[in-house]
Amino acid sequence: MNNKLAMVAFGGNALLRAGQKGTFDEQLENVSRTCAQLRHLIERGYDIVIGHGNGPQVGNVMLQHEAGRKEFGLPAMPMDFCGSETQGSIAYLIETGLEKVLKEAGIDRHVVSIVTRVEVAADDPMFSNPTKFVGPYYQEVPQDGATYKQDPRGLGWRKVVASPKPVRINNIDIVEQLAREGHIVITVGGGGIPVVQTPNGHKGVEAVIDKDLASALAAVTMHADEFYILTDVPKVYINYRKENEMALGLMTVADAKKYLAEGQFAEGSMAPKVRAGIAFVEAGGRECIITEAAALDDPSCGTRIIA
Amino acid sequence: MNNKLAMVAFGGNALLRAGQKGTFDEQLENVSRTCAQLRHLIERGYDIVIGHGNGPQVGNVMLQHEAGRKEFGLPAMPMDFCGSETQGSIAYLIETGLEKVLKEAGIDRHVVSIVTRVEVAADDPMFSNPTKFVGPYYQEVPQDGATYKQDPRGLGWRKVVASPKPVRINNIDIVEQLAREGHIVITVGGGGIPVVQTPNGHKGVEAVIDKDLASALAAVTMHADEFYILTDVPKVYINYRKENEMALGLMTVADAKKYLAEGQFAEGSMAPKVRAGIAFVEAGGRECIITEAAALDDPSCGTRIIA
Repeated sequence: MNNKLAMVAFGGNALLRAGQKGTFDEQLENVSRTCAQLRHLIERGYDIVIGHGNGPQVGNVMLQHEAGRKEFGLPAMPMDFCGSETQGSIAYLIETGLEKVLKEAGIDRHVVSIVTRVEVAADDPMFSNPTKFVGPYYQEVPQDGATYKQDPRGLGWRKVVASPKPVRINNIDIVEQLAREGHIVITVGGGGIPVVQTPNGHKGVEAVIDKDLASALAAVTMHADEFYILTDVPKVYINYRKENEMALGLMTVADAKKYLAEGQFAEGSMAPKVRAGIAFVEAGGRECIITEAAALDDPSCGTRIIA
Repeated sequence: MNNKLAMVAFGGNALLRAGQKGTFDEQLENVSRTCAQLRHLIERGYDIVIGHGNGPQVGNVMLQHEAGRKEFGLPAMPMDFCGSETQGSIAYLIETGLEKVLKEAGIDRHVVSIVTRVEVAADDPMFSNPTKFVGPYYQEVPQDGATYKQDPRGLGWRKVVASPKPVRINNIDIVEQLAREGHIVITVGGGGIPVVQTPNGHKGVEAVIDKDLASALAAVTMHADEFYILTDVPKVYINYRKENEMALGLMTVADAKKYLAEGQFAEGSMAPKVRAGIAFVEAGGRECIITEAAALDDPSCGTRIIA
């Protein structure tokens, strides 16, 4: 219990980059690159828990189910089921990538992946206000009845689904126990499999929980010392892509809330990361660091959110 | 450490029955029925580890990948990746089913699912001799270059792939630890994600490890007291479906080997179960019970393999 515990959230893009087809080799190479950057945290002796996104992956699974339905008459499964599939496959990729890093570093630690359901409130207002981007990018809006919005980085149109707030992470006590024993634990894949309470136990719902908020809840519940949100930019910016663009080194919770209110951060992209950072710090966490994986070896890296 | 540890292997058919489409509701109903039968073991205070098959499920995933490739240009992923997807989704179904049973029984135990890679030997001779049935049943052999064989129960033709022997189960020490702490642990889904050793860590291979053999190896490694193999018949038979058919209540390892040599048990069906039972007992296990889930409450149930 003497080691610091770091919660690290990977983006789905750390595994499947926009513009890539997402072959097995591509995804394994991407994840290996991200895992290699974790070496610094591992060598500094941190206990580590990893959460990860699944946006591009679950989108592909949904398309595969749709194609399988049309071609072979297979039932297309609900989104919670699709998410559970990606928990298995992405965990497998991350385990493979991390094992290579551990081997290279000569460090003997287990990587353990837990299939994780995350409880949301059945009456969460987000169920009537879809905001979460999933699946591939389109240059024209598909006419299939689903909701599409423009990707904030201008890469095209993407499907959006409901993104309810995570309330409780199943088995988080076991995740923490294993991490405190020195194992590197993978959990809340894709934000977790969303479930609601019923008299007969938990029941899946069609939604995607924001992986940064789920990771923040995991970090808070485990009393993590640090919470890293890995993305594809080195820092958080205000006036992003404008003449007066400014990278932020440090941001108080008050600053962060002000910038959010000003609309400085894109929804579905940087805004949920900043909110996740705020949630962690407001719940007593020391600091949240938003940065790119490649910058993890630099102590001055990223944008730190503090109280 | 005072409780008995039971390793329980579910068939993929406990989740998706032949002739069913395999909708989410069908699979959840099937798994819930099987989980309900575990209540007797749970109430008798056993520590429990569950292994499960994925034959029908991974077959569907492979078809979905193929359809997604044709319709959307998505990369079809290798079989190890497909298997990892089913570990996530089947664990999710079993967790949902078990939670309902635990709730009804008023028992407060966690269900924890571990994504599990299983090492096989790169030079396993089975790679050149495919024997494992996967995917849906066909009335005519599809002309797609794959190998098809007739289902031993006469349900049609099915694809067969390589089925190398499991050598080592990744994280089995953690699985055992969690089980001995009273959690119900799900592992070796679909026989585990098959990997071989390389200088850079483990690398996936296209194969399906027999889930009964993987479960037997898990049972042996954890020194399980009892090993249950659940199937869709109440007992093991000799002269199956012949005039002199006989259900076996007890079978020594010597008997079992003799019957196997006589070809009494169908390959891809009862034969691997009997071999798994032999492997467990020969490694020092007390007894392996092969039976249907519905018979678990009957102490005289099933066929017991003993030394």
